[in-house]
Amino acid sequence: MNKPKVDSERLWAGLMEMGRIGATPGGGSGRIALTDLDREGRDLFVGWCREAGCAVRIDRMGNIFARRAGTDEARSPVMTGSHLDTQPLGGKFDGVYGVLAGLEVVRALNDAAIETEAPIDVVVWTDEEGVRFQSSMIASGIFAGLYDLDHGLSSADSNGKTMGQELERIGYAGTEPVGGYRVDSYFEAHIEQGPLLESEGKSVGVVLGAQGKRCYRVTVEGEEGHAGTLPMDQRRDALLGAARMIDAVNRVAFSHQPRPVITVGAIRARPNSPNTIAGSTEFTVDSRHPDGDLLAAIGDDLRRVFAEVADEAGLGVGIEQTTHRPTVTFDPSCITAIREAADALGIPHRDIYSAAGHDACNISHCAPTGMIFVPCEKGISHNEKENAKPEDLAAGCAVLIQAILERAN
Amino acid sequence: MNKPKVDSERLWAGLMEMGRIGATPGGGSGRIALTDLDREGRDLFVGWCREAGCAVRIDRMGNIFARRAGTDEARSPVMTGSHLDTQPLGGKFDGVYGVLAGLEVVRALNDAAIETEAPIDVVVWTDEEGVRFQSSMIASGIFAGLYDLDHGLSSADSNGKTMGQELERIGYAGTEPVGGYRVDSYFEAHIEQGPLLESEGKSVGVVLGAQGKRCYRVTVEGEEGHAGTLPMDQRRDALLGAARMIDAVNRVAFSHQPRPVITVGAIRARPNSPNTIAGSTEFTVDSRHPDGDLLAAIGDDLRRVFAEVADEAGLGVGIEQTTHRPTVTFDPSCITAIREAADALGIPHRDIYSAAGHDACNISHCAPTGMIFVPCEKGISHNEKENAKPEDLAAGCAVLIQAILERAN
Repeated sequence: MNKPKVDSERLWAGLMEMGRIGATPGGGSGRIALTDLDREGRDLFVGWCREAGCAVRIDRMGNIFARRAGTDEARSPVMTGSHLDTQPLGGKFDGVYGVLAGLEVVRALNDAAIETEAPIDVVVWTDEEGVRFQSSMIASGIFAGLYDLDHGLSSADSNGKTMGQELERIGYAGTEPVGGYRVDSYFEAHIEQGPLLESEGKSVGVVLGAQGKRCYRVTVEGEEGHAGTLPMDQRRDALLGAARMIDAVNRVAFSHQPRPVITVGAIRARPNSPNTIAGSTEFTVDSRHPDGDLLAAIGDDLRRVFAEVADEAGLGVGIEQTTHRPTVTFDPSCITAIREAADALGIPHRDIYSAAGHDACNISHCAPTGMIFVPCEKGISHNEKENAKPEDLAAGCAVLIQAILERAN
Repeated sequence: MNKPKVDSERLWAGLMEMGRIGATPGGGSGRIALTDLDREGRDLFVGWCREAGCAVRIDRMGNIFARRAGTDEARSPVMTGSHLDTQPLGGKFDGVYGVLAGLEVVRALNDAAIETEAPIDVVVWTDEEGVRFQSSMIASGIFAGLYDLDHGLSSADSNGKTMGQELERIGYAGTEPVGGYRVDSYFEAHIEQGPLLESEGKSVGVVLGAQGKRCYRVTVEGEEGHAGTLPMDQRRDALLGAARMIDAVNRVAFSHQPRPVITVGAIRARPNSPNTIAGSTEFTVDSRHPDGDLLAAIGDDLRRVFAEVADEAGLGVGIEQTTHRPTVTFDPSCITAIREAADALGIPHRDIYSAAGHDACNISHCAPTGMIFVPCEKGISHNEKENAKPEDLAAGCAVLIQAILERAN
C-alpha cells in the first residue's frame, strides 16, 4: 500500500481561507450558525469536497456528509469531522480544524491513490457552539438520538427565527433523515483548548473521554453589622465565611487523585459596602473530573467542608447544584487506534481528557468514537487570538488518517 | 445645694416633638442641614431655650449658643450640645438627644434653683451629618480652628447653593465670630450607635475617645484561565488569593490586644464568571482602633500577610490607603468627671470608644472634652428605626448635669 502524506501547507491554506469568511479585526472569525457567513463557509467546504470527488448529502438538521466512496459500499461509514460555526469573536481553528483535517484525509488518500473498504464521511455538524439558538451541539445530539428532531428545528434565536426557518433560508435544510443508521466509528480532530500539550511539547493528545462537570451556587448567610462598632467576636461575617470556604474548595481539589479542576470564579457580597459587615455572600463552584463517581464524591466533600466552616463561624450555608454534565468515555478500540497511529508515526503524544463538550461526546452515544487533540497556543480558545502550529495540525491529521485506515480496512 | 432632677418625661416629649419635624414614614426624621425643616427644628429649640431663660447667640456658621448665665460671667463657659440635623432617613435620637439633654440640664437646674459660677452654653452645631454639603462636622471644625470660615461658607450643595447662602435664607447667618474664645470644657451626650452598652446592660458609656480609622483598597493580580482545562497547580487564581487574604485579615484582628475591628466588606472579582479563573480581585479593608500607633502597625501587618499570601500563590498585590481618620483622646479630667458622676448616681457604666466621628472630636482640639454615651436599641443608628429607652436617656442626662456642675463650680 502507498503511504498517505498530509500536505501541511494545503491544510493550513484551507484554514486561512475559511477564516477569512467572517474575519474579525483581531485576527479571528465570527461565523455564527445559520447566518449568511455560515452559508458561505459551508459552500466553500462543499465545493472543496466535490472537487475531491466526494458525494455530498445534507440531512434535515443541516449536517453535511461528504462521502469518499469505499470499495464495499455496503459497509457502514467511518466518519470524521467537526463544525464550521464559531463564537462571535472566535478563532480560526476551533471546529474548522476537525472539518478540514477530514477533507485533508480525503485529499491525501486521493493523492496516494489509496482505496478503503468502508466509505469515509467527512461531516460538518450544524451549530456546535450554541451561541445563537442557546443549545450547543444540538444537531450532533439529534443524530445520536439524544434529542428529537422537532426540538432542534423549533429552537429559536432571540429574534424568534427558528433553526428550521434559518436552514431553509440559507439552503441547508436537507432531506436526509438525521442519523438512525449504523456508523462504524467517528473520529474528531480538534485543538486542545487547554495548555497541557503545548506545555509538555506533545503534538497529539489521545483523548480518553470528556470530563464531567458539576456546578454549584453557594449562599452564605450571616448578619449585617457596623464595621466600626461590632466587636470581632460578635460578628457573623458572611464574606469571611465565604473566603474560608473558597480556600477549602482549593484544599478539596488537592485532596483527590487524579486531581480534579475546581474553580470559584464568581462572588457577590451583600451589601458589598466597605463599612458594613456582609450579611450574605454568594459564590459559584465549577468542578470537573473524568471520573463521574469521584465528581459526585467531590460534591459531598464540598458540602461537608462548607458546613464545617459555617458551623464554626455561626453562619448558614446553602448549596445548590446548577449544572450536571455527565462524563463521557470514548471507545477503547478507537482510543487504541489513535494511540498506535501516533506511536507508529513517532509523534509525541499523551493521554488527555477533554475539558469541554464536543460533538464527539454526543456521537459516542451511537457509535465507537475517539478524538485527537493538537496543541493550541497558550491554550487560548474561544478567542480571536486562537492559534496553532502548522506542524502540529499536520501531525494530528496524520494520526487521523492512520486511525481511519485502521477502521476502514 | 439642692439636688437637680432630670424630668425623664419632659426630655422624651421634647425628642418626640422635635422628631415630628421632618417625620418619615418609618418613624424616623429627615431634617437635612439648612433646609426649611432644619429652620423649623432650630426655631423650636431656640423658643424652648428662651422660655428657659437663656440668651441665644448665633455665630457666622449658624452654630446656636443658648446661655444659662453663671454667677461669674467672666468665667469661660461650660459647653454642652450636639446637632439637630439628621440623615435623609435618620432617627429621632442621633444628635437631637445631646441638644435636648443640654436643654434638660438648664431646665433641671432652673427647677432646683441651682446657680453655677461659670455660664453654661447649650450648643447646636450646624450640619454635623454632612449629607448635603459633603463635609461632615464642618461648623464645629471651624469653631475648633481646624478649617477656615470661608471654606465652610463657600461649601456648596449639588445645586450650587452654598452654606453661606442657605444660612442667610433660613435666617441663621449670625454675626458672632466662630470660636476664638476660651471654652472651659465641652460635654456631649449621644446614643452609642453600637451594641455594647445594650448587650452589657449599662446605661452609660464613659467615652475615652474616638477610634482612628484606616481604610485600604487591595488589588490582587493573577491570570485569567479556563476553569475546565487549566490544572490546579498551574493557576494564578486572584479570587483564591483574595480569599486567603480575607482570612488573614481576620487573624490579624485577633492577634492584637486591645482588639481592633477590621472588616472586609466589599469585593469584586474580574471577570466574575463561573467558568473563568479570576484574573484580578479587589477588596476593601476597614480597620479601626483607639490607639493610633497600633492602627498604623496593623496596616504594616496587613501589608506583610498580603505579601506572604501573594508570594506563595504567585500573585501580585497592591495595597492603597484610602482613608486615614486619626484617633481622638478625650480630656482625662472630663472623663473622670463623667465616670465619677455615674458612680455617685449608681448608674451602671463602662468605658467605651466612639466608633464614629462627633462634633466632640473636633472640639477636643480647642477645649477639654468628654462624651457620654447611652444605649440605643440593637445598636441601630442612621436609620428610621433608631430607638432608645427613656430611662437610659434620663440616666445619661443625670450624669451630664453632674459633670457640668463639677466643671462649672
